[in-house]
Amino acid sequence: MRKEILAKIKALAKNLVNQIDLYKDMFLKLPVRRLSNIIWDEELDRLRLGDKEAKRSFLDIGEVRRFTLTLLIATLANDLLKNGKTASLREVYYNVLPLMKIEPLKGQHESDAAIEDLETILNVVREQMNIRASGRGYLVGPMKWIERYYVGGEVREVERDGTKQGMGGAGVPAIVEKDVFDIVEVKADFVLLIEKDATFVRLVEDEIWKKLNAILVTGMGQPPRAVRRLLHRLRYEWDLPVYVLTDCDPWGFYIFSVVKRGSINLAYLSEELAVPDAKFLGLTVEDKEDFDLPDEIVIKLKEIDKKRLKELMNYPWFKAKEWQKEFKLMLEKNIKMEIQALASKGIEYISKRYLPEKIKAGVFLP
Amino acid sequence: MRKEILAKIKALAKNLVNQIDLYKDMFLKLPVRRLSNIIWDEELDRLRLGDKEAKRSFLDIGEVRRFTLTLLIATLANDLLKNGKTASLREVYYNVLPLMKIEPLKGQHESDAAIEDLETILNVVREQMNIRASGRGYLVGPMKWIERYYVGGEVREVERDGTKQGMGGAGVPAIVEKDVFDIVEVKADFVLLIEKDATFVRLVEDEIWKKLNAILVTGMGQPPRAVRRLLHRLRYEWDLPVYVLTDCDPWGFYIFSVVKRGSINLAYLSEELAVPDAKFLGLTVEDKEDFDLPDEIVIKLKEIDKKRLKELMNYPWFKAKEWQKEFKLMLEKNIKMEIQALASKGIEYISKRYLPEKIKAGVFLP
Repeated sequence: MRKEILAKIKALAKNLVNQIDLYKDMFLKLPVRRLSNIIWDEELDRLRLGDKEAKRSFLDIGEVRRFTLTLLIATLANDLLKNGKTASLREVYYNVLPLMKIEPLKGQHESDAAIEDLETILNVVREQMNIRASGRGYLVGPMKWIERYYVGGEVREVERDGTKQGMGGAGVPAIVEKDVFDIVEVKADFVLLIEKDATFVRLVEDEIWKKLNAILVTGMGQPPRAVRRLLHRLRYEWDLPVYVLTDCDPWGFYIFSVVKRGSINLAYLSEELAVPDAKFLGLTVEDKEDFDLPDEIVIKLKEIDKKRLKELMNYPWFKAKEWQKEFKLMLEKNIKMEIQALASKGIEYISKRYLPEKIKAGVFLP
Repeated sequence: MRKEILAKIKALAKNLVNQIDLYKDMFLKLPVRRLSNIIWDEELDRLRLGDKEAKRSFLDIGEVRRFTLTLLIATLANDLLKNGKTASLREVYYNVLPLMKIEPLKGQHESDAAIEDLETILNVVREQMNIRASGRGYLVGPMKWIERYYVGGEVREVERDGTKQGMGGAGVPAIVEKDVFDIVEVKADFVLLIEKDATFVRLVEDEIWKKLNAILVTGMGQPPRAVRRLLHRLRYEWDLPVYVLTDCDPWGFYIFSVVKRGSINLAYLSEELAVPDAKFLGLTVEDKEDFDLPDEIVIKLKEIDKKRLKELMNYPWFKAKEWQKEFKLMLEKNIKMEIQALASKGIEYISKRYLPEKIKAGVFLP
């Protein structure tokens, strides 16, 4: 993969040089990423970009900065890949900052946008260019992988085993692309994404990964890209079903939605990130009755929850009757619930009863 | 430790039963945790509680709820310790929620406060009662430890090696007390707390832990209790110097301050958490000149930064002349800087030049 990306960067540079010879100018062509060009593809069952293209010219005074910035970042990416090093978004920003001599950068949003340009121009994700975000997560379960990194050009390889991570779990690296995160064995039946780290710790302590033969991952709230890439890889390379465990509230549903369909601002990447057939395991309104949870644990909806629920109801990928029923029930009963509320039935209730019963019965929302 | 805590809970219960026999009432005595009873102890060089005590009576209508709640939590802690299970603060809240029948809990702040009561009554930290917070962090370096947890009463032991954690790092468990986080070997010369996870990843990738023979830990911002306890243990059980690497801004300095002296709302725990001789490694204003950093990376102070700097100047533990000089320089020059700004000199500059040179020269703030 590394060699492919290096070849793509080289091809881009060659193409620009040829353009100078031909037109005395250089252009970058890239797909438009605005909402007007974001499509929910019913067949693919996820968000994707449409066909609108933009052209950025070097000799245009309004475009030369972004053009230059994009090429500076391509140069940095080239160096990173050659040396096997990675850089965070913030490091990229600071690295190019003193190089933009004409008009200084106004902030990291400019370099981030140029990185996104480069992603669409080269049709790669930024992690494949060794550029990483800071958000990560934790992982345990029956899976073995090799992590690779480079020091002074020499490769280091570390074998890791998801069943030997104790209570702490393995930190999910910021980049989980094949070259540096080489999954060598997966014995799990499914992978469970857990919204909250505290719940992840609960399930690790109760050895749910062993009892249910599952890989457990948390992204601590809205999962960062590395976690979504990992889910994607486990789904498509290892054919594992992906289940999602969140609170019963609009924020939890939105986390599920992002895992499943991609987010609007990363729509151009949903092919690499989304898991359209991910299933929602819980918590749901029905669980209140099904598991006889005490009334005290129920929380009233706030105005903002109601507004958000009504928005979710209109998302095309929440049109399934099961979801519409769920939303209506929440609004009717005026309730939301947190996953930790299961502790009202005992600290281990989630591991001993809730998860095994729901998974055995296959009670999911689509 | 587990047995000691169980004995303390039993003693508390016995004492209450005896009180009923004697006075027909029960009292809980506990130190006052308000600001009026928080002292900066110059000799100990950290915050601690003064001698003011409060008394909470069972037969007082204004105190019976908190009294009952405290005992419910003591009962839960007793169960947790007996079964070797742990619970998050939120799980504790939900667990006691349906048990408080007279007047429902108004929120988690009530159970959290009762847990703090119990900590001061028993003179233990809540982690020793198997109650955990959700915040954690990542760890690498020359250190081996055993993590223990319990499933169905059976102990599980997992050996972990900080040199075999790849790029992801080991997740720091939410509880790092001796019983469950048994440090068996430390070969490091010091431990480095890194404010930002992205910087931690940078240093892991550059194998700084190997080059400088150090344990690297990040708490991703203000370090959670588990990370502070870990630093404390490495300092006092293994005699390792603790260095802190943050941004050059009031927030970074405050992180250092909390590691060193304890925070105001956890003053009653600073004996278990603080590391009074921790040293500040950087970033400092002087680094701008010393390492010839480009002007573009400097950020102007906001009004809130100036206000915060002036507050920090008055903290007794920032009275050292080195710190006063640093604060004055920042205000004079009207600048702050981020640690990632070192990337302006190259992605690996922090690992190849900055850290080795500063540590070799012993350039710290006290």
